[in-house]
This record gives sequence, C-alpha cells and structure tokens, in this order.
Amino acid sequence: MPAGCIFCSIASGETDAHVVLSDDVAVAFLDHRPVFKGHTLLAPREHVATLTDLPDELVEPFFSRARLLAQVVEHALEADGTFVAINNKISQSVPHLHVHVVPRRRKDGLRGFFWPRTKYAGDVEMADYAERIRAAVAGQR
Amino acid sequence: MPAGCIFCSIASGETDAHVVLSDDVAVAFLDHRPVFKGHTLLAPREHVATLTDLPDELVEPFFSRARLLAQVVEHALEADGTFVAINNKISQSVPHLHVHVVPRRRKDGLRGFFWPRTKYAGDVEMADYAERIRAAVAGQR
Repeated sequence: MPAGCIFCSIASGETDAHVVLSDDVAVAFLDHRPVFKGHTLLAPREHVATLTDLPDELVEPFFSRARLLAQVVEHALEADGTFVAINNKISQSVPHLHVHVVPRRRKDGLRGFFWPRTKYAGDVEMADYAERIRAAVAGQR
Repeated sequence: MPAGCIFCSIASGETDAHVVLSDDVAVAFLDHRPVFKGHTLLAPREHVATLTDLPDELVEPFFSRARLLAQVVEHALEADGTFVAINNKISQSVPHLHVHVVPRRRKDGLRGFFWPRTKYAGDVEMADYAERIRAAVAGQR
C-alpha cells in the first residue's frame, strides 16, 4: 500500500467512507462529489494504478463487480441507465484504479455524450490512425 | 443479430469500418465522430445490449481486450492517458454494448472530470443512498 493512497486507506478501513461493497477483490463506496447522487466508485483492494496495470487474474472478478454495480445502482435508485467510466492518468484524481458508476435518468440534464466531438480530415487520416492502433494491437498479441 | 444493428453489421463485415481489432470475442473500430482522433469503440461480437447483459463467460475476454486497447491507444498515439467509458441505455447511441477508449493528453482542453458535480444535503442523505445500494448488492450475492 503506497503511503498516502486514500483508496487503499478506505479499503483497509482506516479512512471512513460510505462503503456499499467490500470483499477480498474490491471495495466500492460513494463519491463525495457525485455527478448524481448514488455515484459509486469501485476500486480493487490491491493497489493498482490504472486499467492497464490490472493483473490478469483480477480482470474477471473486478469487472464482474463493475457489472454488478451497474445493475444495482440503476435498479436500487430507480434510474434509467448508468454511465460507467475509468480515467487513466489524465483526469484521474486518485492514482488508484477506480470505476465510476453513475446513475443516469432521461432528461437528467446531461447532454448526449456531453463531450466535444471532432472530425477526421478525411478517410486517409482516419485510415492512418486505424493502422497505427491496429499495428500496436498486433504487436501485443 | 437484431435487424438493423449497426455494430452487428460491422462485426459481420457487412458494414465497413476502420477496424483495429477483430477476433472471436470482439471487434474494435474507430468512432466516426471522435472526442479525439483515435477514439476507438470495442463491442462484443455477440449482440449484447448493455454491460449488465454481458454473459459471465465474456467478462474476462471482453475486458481483457478493453485493457489491451487502453494500453495500445495510449502508446500507439503517444497519448498521456485514456478515458474508458460505457453508456448504458442513457446516452447510448447504439443499443449494442460498446466501450469507448479515448486518448487523453495533458492540456487537451477537457476539464477535470468535465461533468457537473452535485452535493449531498448531508451525511444522513449520503448514508441513505449508500444503504439502498448496499442492500441491493447484498440481495444479488
């Protein structure tokens, strides 16, 4: 446990939080500054910095719990859907992997996908981006 | 395959896309209206509507591929991090589960967690939300 990691401290019970799930794999608790009330954070009990650092053996148990929370946050709060998100390094306020599970409702005031969108200059540029990613995927498999 | 599902059609090869990963589990391709160039969508080959509908046996293979894409999109595009997100039902433009993998850079113009934040009225309200979710988690396990 890295000194000063607030999520490790919540996982160990040293720091209080409104915990909604806790087991040997992960801990989930309410975000103090929710996008909407009920906004929950799921973190692996083991200190893992980002998604790409998640060990193989935790992928299934960790994301099974994310799936469970998506179901439960929606239904327990009578929401219409959820937003499930991970910020890796950029916009990641705590450098301990966490999945945001946010209840969503129709007409909840958040626009579509609420992010600015850009455009490729054309199909050649798009094909170039695809090729760079495809080559990197191939190199990893 | 539901008639008219555009992601099933991309997975089957009927509809063209800039595919970066394709195997028996999933297909990943560039979003045509990217948040940032290189914005990739990962969808299970099997038609699955939302995260909560993902079958047990796909959790590990599907999210292993999401983890791989988070690594590859960041490194292949020399980004500083990634944003990985799933919209379930609300803001979900195509009703076939897909994970957005968006390259992020320092000073890329997107603010912190770019969403409005609210506050609980107090600790009692927060405890009430936690209890509702916790009870629902307990009911599912």
